Amino acid sequence: MVQRILDYVNGSWTDAGASDFLNVWNPASGAAIGSVAMTPREAVAQAVDAGFAAYLDWRRTPAGTRIQPLFKLKALLEAHLDELARIITDECGKTFKESVAEMQRGIENIEVASGMPALIQGYNNEDIARGIDEHMFRQPLGVVTAITPFNFPGMIPLWFLPYAVATGNCFILKPSERVPMTSARLFELIDQAGFPRGVIQLVNGGKDTVDALLDHPLVKAVSFVGSTPVAKYIYSRATANGKRAQCQGGAKNPVVILPDADMDMTTRIVADSAFGCAGQRCLAASVAITVGEARNIFTEQIADAAASRKVGYGLDSATEMGPVITKDSKARIEGIIAGAQQSGVNVLVDGRQKTVSGYEEGNWVFPTILQDVPPESVPATTEIFGPVLSMMHAASVEQAIALVNARAFGNMACIFTSSGAAARQFRYEANAGNVGINIGVAAPMAFFPFSGWNESFFGDLHAQSHHGVEFYTQTKVVVERWPQEWSRQF
Amino acid sequence: MVQRILDYVNGSWTDAGASDFLNVWNPASGAAIGSVAMTPREAVAQAVDAGFAAYLDWRRTPAGTRIQPLFKLKALLEAHLDELARIITDECGKTFKESVAEMQRGIENIEVASGMPALIQGYNNEDIARGIDEHMFRQPLGVVTAITPFNFPGMIPLWFLPYAVATGNCFILKPSERVPMTSARLFELIDQAGFPRGVIQLVNGGKDTVDALLDHPLVKAVSFVGSTPVAKYIYSRATANGKRAQCQGGAKNPVVILPDADMDMTTRIVADSAFGCAGQRCLAASVAITVGEARNIFTEQIADAAASRKVGYGLDSATEMGPVITKDSKARIEGIIAGAQQSGVNVLVDGRQKTVSGYEEGNWVFPTILQDVPPESVPATTEIFGPVLSMMHAASVEQAIALVNARAFGNMACIFTSSGAAARQFRYEANAGNVGINIGVAAPMAFFPFSGWNESFFGDLHAQSHHGVEFYTQTKVVVERWPQEWSRQF
Amino acid sequence: MVQRILDYVNGSWTDAGASDFLNVWNPASGAAIGSVAMTPREAVAQAVDAGFAAYLDWRRTPAGTRIQPLFKLKALLEAHLDELARIITDECGKTFKESVAEMQRGIENIEVASGMPALIQGYNNEDIARGIDEHMFRQPLGVVTAITPFNFPGMIPLWFLPYAVATGNCFILKPSERVPMTSARLFELIDQAGFPRGVIQLVNGGKDTVDALLDHPLVKAVSFVGSTPVAKYIYSRATANGKRAQCQGGAKNPVVILPDADMDMTTRIVADSAFGCAGQRCLAASVAITVGEARNIFTEQIADAAASRKVGYGLDSATEMGPVITKDSKARIEGIIAGAQQSGVNVLVDGRQKTVSGYEEGNWVFPTILQDVPPESVPATTEIFGPVLSMMHAASVEQAIALVNARAFGNMACIFTSSGAAARQFRYEANAGNVGINIGVAAPMAFFPFSGWNESFFGDLHAQSHHGVEFYTQTKVVVERWPQEWSRQF
Amino acid sequence: MVQRILDYVNGSWTDAGASDFLNVWNPASGAAIGSVAMTPREAVAQAVDAGFAAYLDWRRTPAGTRIQPLFKLKALLEAHLDELARIITDECGKTFKESVAEMQRGIENIEVASGMPALIQGYNNEDIARGIDEHMFRQPLGVVTAITPFNFPGMIPLWFLPYAVATGNCFILKPSERVPMTSARLFELIDQAGFPRGVIQLVNGGKDTVDALLDHPLVKAVSFVGSTPVAKYIYSRATANGKRAQCQGGAKNPVVILPDADMDMTTRIVADSAFGCAGQRCLAASVAITVGEARNIFTEQIADAAASRKVGYGLDSATEMGPVITKDSKARIEGIIAGAQQSGVNVLVDGRQKTVSGYEEGNWVFPTILQDVPPESVPATTEIFGPVLSMMHAASVEQAIALVNARAFGNMACIFTSSGAAARQFRYEANAGNVGINIGVAAPMAFFPFSGWNESFFGDLHAQSHHGVEFYTQTKVVVERWPQEWSRQF
Repeated sequence: MVQRILDYVNGSWTDAGASDFLNVWNPASGAAIGSVAMTPREAVAQAVDAGFAAYLDWRRTPAGTRIQPLFKLKALLEAHLDELARIITDECGKTFKESVAEMQRGIENIEVASGMPALIQGYNNEDIARGIDEHMFRQPLGVVTAITPFNFPGMIPLWFLPYAVATGNCFILKPSERVPMTSARLFELIDQAGFPRGVIQLVNGGKDTVDALLDHPLVKAVSFVGSTPVAKYIYSRATANGKRAQCQGGAKNPVVILPDADMDMTTRIVADSAFGCAGQRCLAASVAITVGEARNIFTEQIADAAASRKVGYGLDSATEMGPVITKDSKARIEGIIAGAQQSGVNVLVDGRQKTVSGYEEGNWVFPTILQDVPPESVPATTEIFGPVLSMMHAASVEQAIALVNARAFGNMACIFTSSGAAARQFRYEANAGNVGINIGVAAPMAFFPFSGWNESFFGDLHAQSHHGVEFYTQTKVVVERWPQEWSRQF
Repeated sequence: MVQRILDYVNGSWTDAGASDFLNVWNPASGAAIGSVAMTPREAVAQAVDAGFAAYLDWRRTPAGTRIQPLFKLKALLEAHLDELARIITDECGKTFKESVAEMQRGIENIEVASGMPALIQGYNNEDIARGIDEHMFRQPLGVVTAITPFNFPGMIPLWFLPYAVATGNCFILKPSERVPMTSARLFELIDQAGFPRGVIQLVNGGKDTVDALLDHPLVKAVSFVGSTPVAKYIYSRATANGKRAQCQGGAKNPVVILPDADMDMTTRIVADSAFGCAGQRCLAASVAITVGEARNIFTEQIADAAASRKVGYGLDSATEMGPVITKDSKARIEGIIAGAQQSGVNVLVDGRQKTVSGYEEGNWVFPTILQDVPPESVPATTEIFGPVLSMMHAASVEQAIALVNARAFGNMACIFTSSGAAARQFRYEANAGNVGINIGVAAPMAFFPFSGWNESFFGDLHAQSHHGVEFYTQTKVVVERWPQEWSRQF
Repeated sequence: MVQRILDYVNGSWTDAGASDFLNVWNPASGAAIGSVAMTPREAVAQAVDAGFAAYLDWRRTPAGTRIQPLFKLKALLEAHLDELARIITDECGKTFKESVAEMQRGIENIEVASGMPALIQGYNNEDIARGIDEHMFRQPLGVVTAITPFNFPGMIPLWFLPYAVATGNCFILKPSERVPMTSARLFELIDQAGFPRGVIQLVNGGKDTVDALLDHPLVKAVSFVGSTPVAKYIYSRATANGKRAQCQGGAKNPVVILPDADMDMTTRIVADSAFGCAGQRCLAASVAITVGEARNIFTEQIADAAASRKVGYGLDSATEMGPVITKDSKARIEGIIAGAQQSGVNVLVDGRQKTVSGYEEGNWVFPTILQDVPPESVPATTEIFGPVLSMMHAASVEQAIALVNARAFGNMACIFTSSGAAARQFRYEANAGNVGINIGVAAPMAFFPFSGWNESFFGDLHAQSHHGVEFYTQTKVVVERWPQEWSRQF
Repeated sequence: MVQRILDYVNGSWTDAGASDFLNVWNPASGAAIGSVAMTPREAVAQAVDAGFAAYLDWRRTPAGTRIQPLFKLKALLEAHLDELARIITDECGKTFKESVAEMQRGIENIEVASGMPALIQGYNNEDIARGIDEHMFRQPLGVVTAITPFNFPGMIPLWFLPYAVATGNCFILKPSERVPMTSARLFELIDQAGFPRGVIQLVNGGKDTVDALLDHPLVKAVSFVGSTPVAKYIYSRATANGKRAQCQGGAKNPVVILPDADMDMTTRIVADSAFGCAGQRCLAASVAITVGEARNIFTEQIADAAASRKVGYGLDSATEMGPVITKDSKARIEGIIAGAQQSGVNVLVDGRQKTVSGYEEGNWVFPTILQDVPPESVPATTEIFGPVLSMMHAASVEQAIALVNARAFGNMACIFTSSGAAARQFRYEANAGNVGINIGVAAPMAFFPFSGWNESFFGDLHAQSHHGVEFYTQTKVVVERWPQEWSRQF
């Protein structure tokens, strides 16, 4: 029997009066493993109201007190790390090791947000004019929400939640309806961590639930991670409603390989980036651009790496790559490969029509490499979100950078080289907000902003760290005059 | 003969091929003093393209070099301070002293932006993992624009311009079409300051010109100051186009007067706040809330101050208050007063049907005080943008704060008291981003963000200072690995 | 039988080859409860060498890894809070509640230091000249030490330890030889927290042990808290040896009481400040300056509070104040009271010649109040470090501030008032680094520097927070040029 | 007739009642060009008292006002740049171009300090406990002094002066008695810039003058730049007197040349670093360590560069290198070369016994290269402060870094390479605070701290930038409680 996934509202678990429920599927086995409530608009409003009620006291709670449940939450997540990772693998498909790593990156955000008393400090000047002082205090916004995607169910909610609540806001999570079980378990632990009722809430659902959050006047800020079209929609609707918004969209991340790169290391790292998490991450390398003599050796090595990658159920210890999230997704990815092939692209390694023994119902797409992809073609410009690496070639570093910057997205760009000069030119000129040098997944640490650019991000303040603090607080400037002669009365 | 106001594009003055021109009026004399081009969409595109072309080199110019023309500009503005102030007074109406003060607040932003090399610093960590380092650099956006209002033609462009260009962007100003002459003179000085061609440009016009800026894909960020409906429009359209936006709207600023306030000082300050600049500023006090015994004495004193305020042409040295900007504005303000009167509000001091000898064609509205205005009424909730102070009364500090927070706007709230406790409660609880304590116009200094809240601001990063730097830059995060064993080759 | 207190060196407990041992006494019972090793110079050198050996790897350990044992240590200290507090009370004399509070303030420093990845960030600029970048990284110093006093055995070591190790240094604690048992227990928990061997070490001893630390060339930084003469000695010797030093000395903290203060609250707070911890803290209020009419009522109320304060063994739940640390200390305090009396000062409440039933051997000095103390007299200018409050009177706020600023020390100054203006004047003008407004013990939170001034502090960077990070790191500035033409080779 | 150099005290020029005067010599011509007063102790005290008197109002002057004379000073220095540079060349010997560059680096510090309103901001937290707020304000110290060396008479005073006064202190400069004429002219311009009397003062003199400053109780902070023995003396004496101190000492800066370096660029840069300013700068490269195959080619090229460098009078346009400062200095340098030669070192290029036609009395030492200098020898370990480059060789990067780190000093270390990995290893491991990568004089920009380490610096906060602000201010922490119930009275 499948698990029924509930909302967590005002400190209690509830089905939110939902009439619609959606199945949750294990993408490796194809089995239904859960059923999640589609929270209706009225129930969303109740959660927002409960959040606002909690906010009135929570904002007055010292930051040093607000962080105490975060310390507990870190300890609880570490104590339940394996269990959470297994849930992630079961509903999301990635390998157990990938799930563990994801949770750890999430926990790092809790650690950073635990330093909130120092991070939230405002600033001041005495004597902006003689005897007049000015202060800037950071105050919270009220109720805020995050709408998170299927591919990192353990990590991405934690890009937002710890900063939102440590700064004094009340937070509502609307996780992907495809992977609600990780959040459900996460919230059982949150329930133990000691937050007051209403400070952190969970509402499940789809577009209607999201719209209810976007339209509610008491929701002051919206964070989103997902595809670019939806990011634009959310950014547009949230801002039209007068809210702050930070919306991360899709990506098409190029890696440039120079002939002076350490080819063994490069191959290993690029393969991990392109095929890790079955290519379903916004920092996956999906275009490899070789320069000069790097072409032959890298092509050969990456083809070997792709062909030999062990695909399977993420909880099997030998597995190096899991399935993609849905059958639709599999069909879409295979369609792109087929389209490329029809247009004359060579499918150097073909991951279609393969299956994993014992998991024949899984959504399998094996590592795939497309060779000599034209710069304007679909696989060169579209986010595939599957284990497909498109290869291109450039005659020079300059030309490679031009290919990198031709892209509408700007999430990540990487270079592999031993040259300090090439690395500097690349990081200076690459039109992307997260840059890797001999790095395949340039994911900013929790103490840095997750800096997508262009079509990969809409807004100005990013997730994590100092940006999270600024996004979740508003500056209050106070100018004060206390004439010295008033003291003469005593 | 009226002066023809041109655009300043790519280092030259041009009429932008405009077919429409709009008259500029002196609000005190009623005379036409200028005629300004309505820049068409194609000419806007040319300016944006010129800005982008200039940007390619400007972004590579060291910050220490980029600030040098700002030092020159400060010196030029100081040398031409009186001349600029006279232009402001002539087209905008405020007194010469107010015009000088406005320019000085603008120059202070140039001073702060001149510290850009220290302000623009990114941050870094060595060893995020062993041997791997992470950096955040701030890089400029490209072409950015500001759309500024009529009431501070000298200051508000400088809330944006110095930060935009010192951070490496190219900047286009679209000033209010009612007061283009101040910008025209400002740009003659900018022309002398030594910026490369295309780095700072001026396009005049109305809504079509604005829309052309909002829709151009190479414009990356939009700053706006004006009324709330237009702020919402700009925010919505700019963000729907994927841009960053920071949009300041209107205000309805309450001041609270406690019985322990220094009444003479309070009266003087509140009168300056309510009637200064003829009430046409977003930080004008427009609602005075007395608490307890403050009622009688403050009412009496403020009525005297209103009645005795010397209204006239701003360049006459005796003048304490000038006209409102247009005849439409005068009619609108008088209509609100009349409506209030009809609904039973006592017009304690009536500024209607008055004129200034020798300036009979001026847009005169004299200081006006409305007594016992109901909290939900039009004069209590609407931005009048004229010299009209509405009075209310509260039985306690708590009730006064409730009245303050009932407002949709959140630009400013002030309190007058000698009590440290009342001041603290007020600054903590007032739902406004700029708070004054014994201050009537709580305008943040240039080294603080100008922090409107609620319907007074849309966005998250404000004008001026650190916020300006962040708004005009995007964070680029770089993760780098340089394996130590690679050094063994030598 | 008394407990033998050992050193903790390179991960093991050792008697350090000590030939001298000193008794540790319970100041309430007068019983010997421990015996502590006086570590000889050679053993100190071994600890320093072990610290340096550990440093070589610890500095290369990511900050995100270095903070993990701090999270564990926080949890361990919380789990053993009562136990630690009892040890503090037994060797130091303060009440159990005071001991708990002290530990909590210590733990808060661990919390702040756990945010080290964000706190330790350096900064950078691209293009200081075209194509040349500059970075500042913070790197640790090596082996550092703190020499801590008897009065806060649980808290003061934690002002330094967490920052020192989280920034990558190896840390040696030399606690007061009068209260070594708290440190001994603390280090048993540190031993469980997971720090590598040699990263945190404990050496016990007296002046010779200190000198060995001050003279060792591998000790790079010295933190000290104690009396002013010793602070000067340490500052002088450490700096003459080329080291960084931050040395906190004694204090003589005035509180000013205005007639508009809330007298009940003020009395309670001042009594807690003057008599809490038996007056043995560097932030104890020891001079009360009444202004105007505050004199009579405050004098009466504080005398009542002093006379009724329940003195006794700190573990008895009714006890509000414990004994002073030693018999010598008791004799010295009583001598100062006697001297004052002989010079004509009125002993309004006399705490001499009193004892606590069942603890006749304790070092009892009861709350004492000296009235109308002359500004130049011994009790007005000397740190008594006992429960003795000297009273003075001033005719005006200005005069009161003059009395405050006459003092050589500058640790703390407080004012009690409801006037915002008096508070502002006081905080602006008081010549002390920690200022309280309606606060009796203005101890900076862990996210602020503990800011003694004048004879209360020698150095420039204080304990705690950002200052701790800066004190324990050295800035490394890197200028790099990577000519773009070098990329053309590929 | 020689110019008489006076002190500038309390806004006036004075001979300070000096009975001793010292000649100032042009090191190229050997002519006496000035005579400088040796200020006696009593006159120093008068300056300190005048500074303290000025401080009482200056500290209350808004930072935004305090920076206005700095803007003027920048403009004045730029207007007189050539004149100042000629004075520097005449008394200090360096080339006109070097003198101009020096002044520009000084002016950059004025620019950074002009951003003081943003740099001096303190920080705050609301609700450290419910209803209790905490603030940190930065307040100035009082009178501060800088004692500066002969080699950068225009720049080094400006490392301190702008920060000291912009933060609200009053500043006394004691320049090198060998080069007082630059300061004299600088102070004539300071006199025009609009600082109040006593805010900036000049006292000339030698050791007695310095001691008078170090011993005066109203001097709160001492900055020094000079040789290591004197730096130690100043640090020791200033701190023994309870003051803050930051003392920069000597240097022995190694550059490492890898075989993959661009040899032409490297040679040019290293020659400029080693022989520029006749080697008389604390960031001069004085040891070149070649690795592997870099040895032969670099040795050959640097020898050519040394031999062909045009030595002469700094105002002659063809001159590439000037004389050393004194005849004593010349004798000392030649003695070191001779000693090295006697101990078996090969003098590859010998700069002794050469002269410049028309300037036969000048203190000429021509560029000199010592080959295969043993690591422990005098020329490898001693600061020569002349145009002498010692060469060493290493078999690997690791060995080269070991040679770099063997040095007692830690001012600068540079590497020349095209390898990103070698650069990273070097910057991470080099035991020096200023590191250059393909840079020969890694002088931090004014917005970075000038970060000497080890025997090159004593203290913790360095010159310039954020460190300057912190060094010249003390943190005042304010904790305030304003019970909300107190507002109920109204």
